[in-house]
Amino acid sequence: MGQKIKVGVIGAGRIGKIHASNIIKNFADVEVKAVADIYADAIKDWAAELGIQHVYADYKKIIEDKDIDAVIICSSTDTHSQITIEAAQAGKHIFCEKPIDYDIARIHQALEAVKLAGVKFQVGFNRRFDHNFKKVRELIQNGSIGDVQIVKVISRDPAPPPAEYVKVSGGMFLDMTIHDFDMVRYLTGSEVTEVYANAAVLVDKAIGEAGDVDTALISLKFANGAIGMIDNCRQAVYGYDQRVEVLGTKGGITVTNDTPTTVVVSTECAVTADKPKYFFLERYMESFEAEMKEFFQSIVTNTEPVVTGIDGLKPVLIGLAAKKSHEEGRPVKL
Amino acid sequence: MGQKIKVGVIGAGRIGKIHASNIIKNFADVEVKAVADIYADAIKDWAAELGIQHVYADYKKIIEDKDIDAVIICSSTDTHSQITIEAAQAGKHIFCEKPIDYDIARIHQALEAVKLAGVKFQVGFNRRFDHNFKKVRELIQNGSIGDVQIVKVISRDPAPPPAEYVKVSGGMFLDMTIHDFDMVRYLTGSEVTEVYANAAVLVDKAIGEAGDVDTALISLKFANGAIGMIDNCRQAVYGYDQRVEVLGTKGGITVTNDTPTTVVVSTECAVTADKPKYFFLERYMESFEAEMKEFFQSIVTNTEPVVTGIDGLKPVLIGLAAKKSHEEGRPVKL
Amino acid sequence: MGQKIKVGVIGAGRIGKIHASNIIKNFADVEVKAVADIYADAIKDWAAELGIQHVYADYKKIIEDKDIDAVIICSSTDTHSQITIEAAQAGKHIFCEKPIDYDIARIHQALEAVKLAGVKFQVGFNRRFDHNFKKVRELIQNGSIGDVQIVKVISRDPAPPPAEYVKVSGGMFLDMTIHDFDMVRYLTGSEVTEVYANAAVLVDKAIGEAGDVDTALISLKFANGAIGMIDNCRQAVYGYDQRVEVLGTKGGITVTNDTPTTVVVSTECAVTADKPKYFFLERYMESFEAEMKEFFQSIVTNTEPVVTGIDGLKPVLIGLAAKKSHEEGRPVKL
Amino acid sequence: MGQKIKVGVIGAGRIGKIHASNIIKNFADVEVKAVADIYADAIKDWAAELGIQHVYADYKKIIEDKDIDAVIICSSTDTHSQITIEAAQAGKHIFCEKPIDYDIARIHQALEAVKLAGVKFQVGFNRRFDHNFKKVRELIQNGSIGDVQIVKVISRDPAPPPAEYVKVSGGMFLDMTIHDFDMVRYLTGSEVTEVYANAAVLVDKAIGEAGDVDTALISLKFANGAIGMIDNCRQAVYGYDQRVEVLGTKGGITVTNDTPTTVVVSTECAVTADKPKYFFLERYMESFEAEMKEFFQSIVTNTEPVVTGIDGLKPVLIGLAAKKSHEEGRPVKL
Repeated sequence: MGQKIKVGVIGAGRIGKIHASNIIKNFADVEVKAVADIYADAIKDWAAELGIQHVYADYKKIIEDKDIDAVIICSSTDTHSQITIEAAQAGKHIFCEKPIDYDIARIHQALEAVKLAGVKFQVGFNRRFDHNFKKVRELIQNGSIGDVQIVKVISRDPAPPPAEYVKVSGGMFLDMTIHDFDMVRYLTGSEVTEVYANAAVLVDKAIGEAGDVDTALISLKFANGAIGMIDNCRQAVYGYDQRVEVLGTKGGITVTNDTPTTVVVSTECAVTADKPKYFFLERYMESFEAEMKEFFQSIVTNTEPVVTGIDGLKPVLIGLAAKKSHEEGRPVKL
Repeated sequence: MGQKIKVGVIGAGRIGKIHASNIIKNFADVEVKAVADIYADAIKDWAAELGIQHVYADYKKIIEDKDIDAVIICSSTDTHSQITIEAAQAGKHIFCEKPIDYDIARIHQALEAVKLAGVKFQVGFNRRFDHNFKKVRELIQNGSIGDVQIVKVISRDPAPPPAEYVKVSGGMFLDMTIHDFDMVRYLTGSEVTEVYANAAVLVDKAIGEAGDVDTALISLKFANGAIGMIDNCRQAVYGYDQRVEVLGTKGGITVTNDTPTTVVVSTECAVTADKPKYFFLERYMESFEAEMKEFFQSIVTNTEPVVTGIDGLKPVLIGLAAKKSHEEGRPVKL
Repeated sequence: MGQKIKVGVIGAGRIGKIHASNIIKNFADVEVKAVADIYADAIKDWAAELGIQHVYADYKKIIEDKDIDAVIICSSTDTHSQITIEAAQAGKHIFCEKPIDYDIARIHQALEAVKLAGVKFQVGFNRRFDHNFKKVRELIQNGSIGDVQIVKVISRDPAPPPAEYVKVSGGMFLDMTIHDFDMVRYLTGSEVTEVYANAAVLVDKAIGEAGDVDTALISLKFANGAIGMIDNCRQAVYGYDQRVEVLGTKGGITVTNDTPTTVVVSTECAVTADKPKYFFLERYMESFEAEMKEFFQSIVTNTEPVVTGIDGLKPVLIGLAAKKSHEEGRPVKL
Repeated sequence: MGQKIKVGVIGAGRIGKIHASNIIKNFADVEVKAVADIYADAIKDWAAELGIQHVYADYKKIIEDKDIDAVIICSSTDTHSQITIEAAQAGKHIFCEKPIDYDIARIHQALEAVKLAGVKFQVGFNRRFDHNFKKVRELIQNGSIGDVQIVKVISRDPAPPPAEYVKVSGGMFLDMTIHDFDMVRYLTGSEVTEVYANAAVLVDKAIGEAGDVDTALISLKFANGAIGMIDNCRQAVYGYDQRVEVLGTKGGITVTNDTPTTVVVSTECAVTADKPKYFFLERYMESFEAEMKEFFQSIVTNTEPVVTGIDGLKPVLIGLAAKKSHEEGRPVKL
């Protein structure tokens, strides 16, 4: 590519800032030309420090900028599908944070717009780019453990979000488990056909009062015959617990947590090791960079991104089924 | 106790032989006076070598021997409840291999007979006496991890049994998972209130043709609000996989497999460690001895054994519910 | 063997009692006919409980008993060589606790007597029979890591002995390191040609005042060109630290400590695992049984024991060289 | 700081390129204004891609540039002291790769020049900035393990350098062990008072013919009474082995290798985990960035860098003593 890819970042909350700064730091061939955020004033200093030329309150300024090749959508979830449609119609490549939407019809509309425009569209399932999970996928793909029989994901947060957040989050299955629904699809290469959610409020009553659950074991069936389980909790006091385990006909795979150091201290009282890396920023920072690399690669080489629109749609469908399963106390087919 | 406890072992298959030889080796105060097995001829040499005086084909000879204080019932499952009743009526203390029976009514009859006779009755859930799991229970009991939220058991055999065995086994839930149903009760100290079995035939078609499953993820709800999961497979090519994991409000516990050695070899190709101890004989040998110690202790001190008749009954009830859940594709309440 | 091997145990302190009880428990073909201890009265009850017929104050009663085939010498170190000579002359097979003696001339006399009598003679280097170290030896022997370049042994006690003990112990190199000198010979299959002891008093001043050291890093050269290091400390507050590490041209081997359980507890404060098994009784119990098995095997099959008289002599020679190295502050050749 | 720090990089081999690119990527307040390398042509494209304005064949152009605040000296070792002197006299802050020189007199001259000029001077002992080792140091400093008794460093390369390199390397003790000599000083906070090198040629005869060794166990005494050991090998076929272990009066610390992933695969054959990160670029990349951060920090805040001139001198002194020890076969005092 003779010229730099010009990018506009829409939404400069925590994840938007991470993406912008990662791009500037790591991709000499990409320029963050503009950033848009409804609280434009609040991000001006930050943008100036990074050398971003334009700061807008209205994302449409980015959509209308003919010079901009691609958008990174990091705004609030309810705006994702609409901005996707507008960006696609303006011919811009799109990186969209998960989930595309909680409404299946609107996801379909967004994907339709992307298809019509022929632009690249990648969803922000960053964990696919994690060093541990990528290797698990490779080992499965190259037959190291034969046919997959059981796949399990443990995904627990260090501390629960405030009940306020929970109310607008779409519920644990769509807000938190959605990453894990993507992970089991990614690892197995097979679709989920049935879900049974065994869930409860065991961390914070306020979460229950907000109509949500905070602890769940979600049983899964896959199209290829395998079975699976996702273990979620909004609170693991020892830190961010992110593990995976797969059993196949020729072997098993386990992934344990990454830790800040490998230091082990032995005293009269105990043998102690590091807790897991604290939360998703510490744990998955590399993957945020790697997904961007993939996105720009797909633009430059004109190939399909690794995480497609369908990959954005499916976990939402599974999440809605899990919700229904929990509400009705029975397995739900997809 | 001034005098030795005199014991009769009924059924001298693999587990009967283990118990007999463990008693002789480890308990100077206990004498194995007689052993009964329908294939009496086949065990004569073995009994002679151990110095066991009497070998009978008919277990009733043991029941009738007034000199014998206790029986160890290791015969085939379908005879457990009947022999229990006869032994109880003869005033003998009873150690009975799991399960007591697959028929709930007969279990009740057996427990009733035991109650009437006022004899000790212990069921062979040996894993309760395992060093790893005993410590997990202690940590939960002493509040180290707060209230239990999630309890998980992984229990996979190294190789599947022949389909012939499967046909008469009572099915995986009653034959294999029964140990894990006991384990979750033991660890949580709470009763299972609902079961959902997500099961499949992924190891051996012949097992499916015999009407059974070989792989299962069993979702559980507990009376204390906790949720749980049991992971079973009739085949883990890397060996006998026996792990436990608990999440509580103040911490988490994991148990990994015991290995023959701690040797790790690093070469140009890989860093390799030992596989788990091969199967239940290697893995749980200590626990077989420990449960016997407990049994004789309860006789000498006239106290209730750690594994009671109710502990024998409950896992069968859960197993039957799991079977129903699998057959009907829905959660089943207890 | 048609008849039982009849054994006399000489010296019934801690290790003598362990051997006697291990033999009675595990070897149906061996009979402990007599035990001798200068405090005969103190062990009478213990002997009676185990069913040992004869208890003597004078070990000569055992030597003179024509019916006894073998002796287990567990008396104080200064008596080992003398009793070995007398037992050999009486035609008895000998298992002798380490060290044979601290005096090289007397070791030679003892070994000469053994040779003349043609009896079996095994020295109590039990760690050769440990599951971990045996596997390391096998891996080296079968070429898994190519030629050995570096061999390292870590051997630290949980707590220092009283200074009183230290005074009569022969010094750390002969009392404690002697096991490790044997281990490096066993693992490498090569002789030590040079020793440099870097030692200090860092645990207990009283040990220094008693003329000994309590902490040491001992550098070794081997006949096959390899180099090595032994790491000793009389105190590791976290418990008995028994590890080994080998580097070869084709790979490396590490051995970590055995632990009571594999339980790991993660809390807000830390991730904690078990400390090592507490001390040598807990850690090496299996090996005490295994070395006895080997001893009786060598009698029955009339083969050379795995730990020979030369294996008893060499570590004493290395220990004396280490002592000299420390005193003179320079490497000492053997 | 209102203005950017302007930097000149002298020597653009592997490590010079890493520093230049790390600075450009991570420090918005620092500008790499020029780079000098005797093979200027070979690095032009690389410099252009990074946006470095000036590429010189002669480093004096950088020294003479009044606009440049600091130099990063990454040229060949024999030029370090001379360039340090010139840069100091020109008033520039200096980051100098290790070692400053192999000649003690020239090191003193360089440090004298630095002192006279009053400029910052930091030596490139990057491992001090590694997450694992930094934590070990902190734990020692805050008394977590009491007084240090034993400190051990394992430092093995994945593959030996060519004999050609070895000839000009200054020998293993000054080329490779020098990092470990710094590490033991850093960890213990105490000076080495005596060295004994037990070294051999066990990897590659050509290294021996070049007058060097390739395998060594180096025994150390420290001013605070502690003892230590460094384990070096030019070849560990399983990869770059970088571990540390410390024993103190109140506990022990171990550090194991960092690995690319935490994936463990269990098959019928073995349980296999990742090998260590391949070599120093993979293993220590973060520390190269961290040491630069420290260097610029010390300029901006006008404080002493963490790795001083004395820290550059001492390991060379220890290395020369180790060489002498090996040549004369005896411990050498410092």
